[in-house]
Amino acid sequence: MKYYIGIDIGGTNIKTGVVDEDGKIISEHSIPTRAERPQEEVLKDIIKSVRASVSGVDIDYSDVVSAGIGTPGFIDVKNGVVIYNNNLGWRNFGVSGELSRELGIPVTLENDADAAALGEVIAGSAKGAKSAMIITLGTGVGTGYVVDGKIVRGCEFGHMVIEFGGRQCTCGRKGCFESYCSATGLINMTKELISDNPDGLTARIAAKEGSVGGRTVFDASQKGDKEADELIDKYISYLACGLVNLINGLQPEIISLGGGIAKQGTRLIDPLKEKVYTEIYEGIKFPKIVTCTLGYKAGLIGAALAAR
Amino acid sequence: MKYYIGIDIGGTNIKTGVVDEDGKIISEHSIPTRAERPQEEVLKDIIKSVRASVSGVDIDYSDVVSAGIGTPGFIDVKNGVVIYNNNLGWRNFGVSGELSRELGIPVTLENDADAAALGEVIAGSAKGAKSAMIITLGTGVGTGYVVDGKIVRGCEFGHMVIEFGGRQCTCGRKGCFESYCSATGLINMTKELISDNPDGLTARIAAKEGSVGGRTVFDASQKGDKEADELIDKYISYLACGLVNLINGLQPEIISLGGGIAKQGTRLIDPLKEKVYTEIYEGIKFPKIVTCTLGYKAGLIGAALAAR
Repeated sequence: MKYYIGIDIGGTNIKTGVVDEDGKIISEHSIPTRAERPQEEVLKDIIKSVRASVSGVDIDYSDVVSAGIGTPGFIDVKNGVVIYNNNLGWRNFGVSGELSRELGIPVTLENDADAAALGEVIAGSAKGAKSAMIITLGTGVGTGYVVDGKIVRGCEFGHMVIEFGGRQCTCGRKGCFESYCSATGLINMTKELISDNPDGLTARIAAKEGSVGGRTVFDASQKGDKEADELIDKYISYLACGLVNLINGLQPEIISLGGGIAKQGTRLIDPLKEKVYTEIYEGIKFPKIVTCTLGYKAGLIGAALAAR
Repeated sequence: MKYYIGIDIGGTNIKTGVVDEDGKIISEHSIPTRAERPQEEVLKDIIKSVRASVSGVDIDYSDVVSAGIGTPGFIDVKNGVVIYNNNLGWRNFGVSGELSRELGIPVTLENDADAAALGEVIAGSAKGAKSAMIITLGTGVGTGYVVDGKIVRGCEFGHMVIEFGGRQCTCGRKGCFESYCSATGLINMTKELISDNPDGLTARIAAKEGSVGGRTVFDASQKGDKEADELIDKYISYLACGLVNLINGLQPEIISLGGGIAKQGTRLIDPLKEKVYTEIYEGIKFPKIVTCTLGYKAGLIGAALAAR
């Protein structure tokens, strides 16, 4: 058996893991990133974490083929350089080369969303799919596209305008997919609902919890609030719009939804499917629409096996 | 020198040509399709046209490696079957196999927009580009994407909604890229302008010409009509919106615009570039934006060389 190291460098935590050929994590370790430190110190902790992951399982280091990093931001995949990572404060940092010298094995670098998409195709919700689009509904909307087991790099549709002149997006454009369908987008729309209906159930739930989250409107809906139902309907209509754009445009075999909002499960997926399947261009095969199953593990597995 | 046959089967004409290794057409022939006939008769004419193309130039038939067909509609590329072609009335017609038997060489099949995109990359406006998106602004909006000299099949963004709940599209959705940016879309918007301003210059030009075309509003603009300028601005804003979606989403190195509207040249391209370049997501490299240079020849060249 050969083994691969996965390294997920996030703004909050660094996660490392040993992944086997089948895409199973057999040992993993995590430490806080403390991104405010100089990059050399973060790098030292990454190496410590990798060694802890490897030491936690009874394998021969000579059976470890390579390591792969997943991290957000702008990445030069070919040269293993983080061009710009906002959360880590890294600029033009040749992290792959540095790590490779220390670990004595080749180290590759991928965008974290791309790595997670690959992980879901190798061992999760999209296992075995010929073409899979993984859409993460988190702080932003991330899309990762995997065809024939390979990441299609730079495929990123969060900043596709779906409503010309619509909601202001952080990117400067108006009406991006992300500005409606990210958790942030849903939270913003929920706040508007609360401001329009300060005595409604959604408002009361938010007041009780002390904040508005992506779940607030779903909680209100479950308790029978019609305004919450309407907002969820609207959210799902926008999500269906973005999904159908990508289905018409690229014809993936399967779409897997990840991120916080996807945890709503059937309350989200069932009406979403209904809307999507009525809108797809005639003749295009209906893709499966499912939720991601691996959580953060997808990123570790995908990063580890991206170089294989 | 090796040679390749290109065959473009359109609803109106069948065009065939002999293409050399460099993507140069060295002989071509054309006949009306007369699509109302049984497919066997159309096939006979295709063979006749191919033979006419070959006979028109002094080459040895044994140096002809293969032939490639480009045609609109739903295509099973792998098996060389036209699944459904609305204009030709073909359903599940294994045209590649039939032609291959008659011509004694392998025959491949591609979507005509994909073939044309490949042609522009091989020998036209996008020559040598690592990744090129060819966008045809004709009756509809067609997109063809070529990466590393290979067609990315099924990449078709004409039915990407850019205005949620917007203009009715022929596909059933509302607000598709095509419903604004095709020649048909521009003509519809021009008709609305005329109906709102029946005494305006655009209306008078249309009345004089007896019809409204994609050029009408550009002609009015050239004669100093402000309302025409506003409509062109609006059209370019929508076109920029669709282009930026594709640039953010796929990061092509070059975008080539084809079809009738692209003939407006700098009156279209210059303000378009300005709008596009201010909207692209930060960090993404600006693609070149140009117009296609090969016209119908792109489809012949691309179809011929797709199998190479």
